[in-house]
Amino acid sequence: MNEYRDLRVALLGCGSVGAQVARLLLEHGDELTARVGARLTLAGIAVRDVNSKRDVDLPIELFTTDAERLVQGADIVVELMGGIEPAKSLITLALQGGADVVTANKALIAAHGKELSATAEQVGAQLLFEASVAAAIPILRPLSESLVGDHITRVMGIVNGSTNYILDRMDRFGDSAEDAAKVASDLGFLEADPTLDVEGFDAAQKATILARIAFHTEVPEAAVHREGITKITAEQIEAAKHAGLVIKLLAIAERVTGSDDTEGVSVRVYPALLRRDHPLATVYEGKNAVFVEAEAAGELMFYGAGAGGAETASAVLGDLVSAARRHIVGGPGIIGSLHADLPVLPVGEIITSYQIMLEVRDEPGVLAKVATILAEHGVSAASVEQNTSKGAAGHAALIIGTHAAREADLASTVAALANDSAVTEVLSVLRMEGAA
Amino acid sequence: MNEYRDLRVALLGCGSVGAQVARLLLEHGDELTARVGARLTLAGIAVRDVNSKRDVDLPIELFTTDAERLVQGADIVVELMGGIEPAKSLITLALQGGADVVTANKALIAAHGKELSATAEQVGAQLLFEASVAAAIPILRPLSESLVGDHITRVMGIVNGSTNYILDRMDRFGDSAEDAAKVASDLGFLEADPTLDVEGFDAAQKATILARIAFHTEVPEAAVHREGITKITAEQIEAAKHAGLVIKLLAIAERVTGSDDTEGVSVRVYPALLRRDHPLATVYEGKNAVFVEAEAAGELMFYGAGAGGAETASAVLGDLVSAARRHIVGGPGIIGSLHADLPVLPVGEIITSYQIMLEVRDEPGVLAKVATILAEHGVSAASVEQNTSKGAAGHAALIIGTHAAREADLASTVAALANDSAVTEVLSVLRMEGAA
Repeated sequence: MNEYRDLRVALLGCGSVGAQVARLLLEHGDELTARVGARLTLAGIAVRDVNSKRDVDLPIELFTTDAERLVQGADIVVELMGGIEPAKSLITLALQGGADVVTANKALIAAHGKELSATAEQVGAQLLFEASVAAAIPILRPLSESLVGDHITRVMGIVNGSTNYILDRMDRFGDSAEDAAKVASDLGFLEADPTLDVEGFDAAQKATILARIAFHTEVPEAAVHREGITKITAEQIEAAKHAGLVIKLLAIAERVTGSDDTEGVSVRVYPALLRRDHPLATVYEGKNAVFVEAEAAGELMFYGAGAGGAETASAVLGDLVSAARRHIVGGPGIIGSLHADLPVLPVGEIITSYQIMLEVRDEPGVLAKVATILAEHGVSAASVEQNTSKGAAGHAALIIGTHAAREADLASTVAALANDSAVTEVLSVLRMEGAA
Repeated sequence: MNEYRDLRVALLGCGSVGAQVARLLLEHGDELTARVGARLTLAGIAVRDVNSKRDVDLPIELFTTDAERLVQGADIVVELMGGIEPAKSLITLALQGGADVVTANKALIAAHGKELSATAEQVGAQLLFEASVAAAIPILRPLSESLVGDHITRVMGIVNGSTNYILDRMDRFGDSAEDAAKVASDLGFLEADPTLDVEGFDAAQKATILARIAFHTEVPEAAVHREGITKITAEQIEAAKHAGLVIKLLAIAERVTGSDDTEGVSVRVYPALLRRDHPLATVYEGKNAVFVEAEAAGELMFYGAGAGGAETASAVLGDLVSAARRHIVGGPGIIGSLHADLPVLPVGEIITSYQIMLEVRDEPGVLAKVATILAEHGVSAASVEQNTSKGAAGHAALIIGTHAAREADLASTVAALANDSAVTEVLSVLRMEGAA
């Protein structure tokens, strides 16, 4: 029999993910040992209250409230407490002591990932966080390893399960926004503070992490243009459906060339229209998916569960094994540096297209007026559809699809339309993504 | 400036993939150097004829016809010649000399992967073949690394682009089988010998590779149950569509428990019905996708281009960088062993469900007879639909959906139905996959 070296694993936190990580480590220990080439020993689990009820039955002697001491004796620390503190201090302590760290903490990595990665690099330790974006879906490793010889141009993801659940209910079951949110809440899909989901904060955190890995560029959360789903109406969903489109909350990170030829990145979160035959259009319920465009590889998509204890634990274990293997042999870590350090361009600089729905006076010359306003702002119409049966008497609905144009020009076009006397109401403005 | 060590890369073959690999290596050299921590130097390109026309303009002095000599001076060999020989001998030579090898050669890996991996292991070299399955899509690395702490239960892929293209034309454009095949052929989607595609040989090779990586088990190509798409009719496609289903050629590798409680794997390729809301159902045109089920991670899907020079080159480069990084630091290779070595169970042992379409005499008692035959074979009907408007006068079409049952029982049920006097024709038998 082989003599295996022991690697001591410290687990911080024992919620739904932590309990599953502990279970998998204990149940699959021998198999993991064979794959790692070292024995992964669960040295302890730091919790606030040793006697709390857990999802999984675990040996009581593993639990401790002394996280600091547990960290100091560990080769690899798995942080699953969530939140900024004490997670940040404990991770820093671990890295400074030469331990590798695996975490699923998206808020922490979004806010302090740069600093923590620098700490890791200084001591030659690893900081891995695959589970922080889209839970079970392998996305950070494919971006940083499989596509390492390619040039990623765009990452576009459905990375918040609860908002996807709400929009999907509205789309496929005709729910009102309120009813859909209630179902999502009843099923436990929404965070304790639903604002984090529905206003796009959670998606924005994940977008910064995706941008960092795809483009080797630090993007502060505050630099992410963010719009939530709270203004999306059943009417917009219905109109989209009628046009062969679907509305999804997208987190987008892409390389862009600004108007002054600056090369940069744009990171944004907003609800947008997608054609029904786009691979992201059929991501139903609370599922997540990340669509990637790269110069050589073309279009790729990674799909799966974006939440859940066992699902997230699967990604944590993958990182843990990877960290353990490198812990033994040494060498450079997996996650790339921030060497590119591209500027983050404002949302006005991105190229996109709009679908604009207006209520207009049903009288001669209105179409010409609208067309003139578009032309004055350098925006070209791809389609115009008039519907006299909708809207108040003497009014018509006008649906304008624009060609791709700079966001700032599109925004000023909408402002000018809103101010025109022929336009009685701007019913809806949505961006269109994923077009060829 | 850093002093980087040189790693000499030998390229074998310069077809559509090889030329793109050479281009990417030359164009992205500095960036790759930063990511690898060593300089990847293209030492040479072995070809049959130095003066052949190439897809990409490359320095003539790189070309040689002496592959053996090129291999002997290399740190990493990238084999993109295809076919069994001389690829196999050259890879063996490279590995025995301590070089790492990256290949996209599915036929070679399917037939001789076990032997070549053993050679690599003996000398501590690496053999990587991400590009051999589903070209650009990162699938082998996620299976072997991201899911290393999980238990994969099933891998189900659309891994042959040309047959997917044909079935998709029939489904979405109503093409006949002949017309769809002609379009696919005109577009260059079919191999020189279309049998490799339409009879499922190509998919079967990829299935053995997926099974090997997912289940650490060697599966000889001959052990793969294989049915092609040549018997699929426009009527079957239409009937599937009508029922909210779609027919896809699937390569399936799964853990199964045989009737005598043997734990084993089943590997098979056949056209099967999928519900339209299954993630694989919306894989259109020549795209590939691999759907993975794992105990903890749940359902995952990896989607993208399954062919193409640049697309395949992207995956080759990912492997090349990975091999280069490990070449420098040493340590265990990525691709796991065949330690599990599970038995490959015959197709009769798998659990699946059938959709059976029969033409029957339109007379009393026929349904009872059919139900009796099912029950006698231990098969339970999930749905029975009768359609008197179809078929010859005095006849009706009967569509039976079965519950999941052992394949052998289903097959003998169909045989018994075919022999019954009430049944005038067995119109269609298709398996149903992806049901919950």
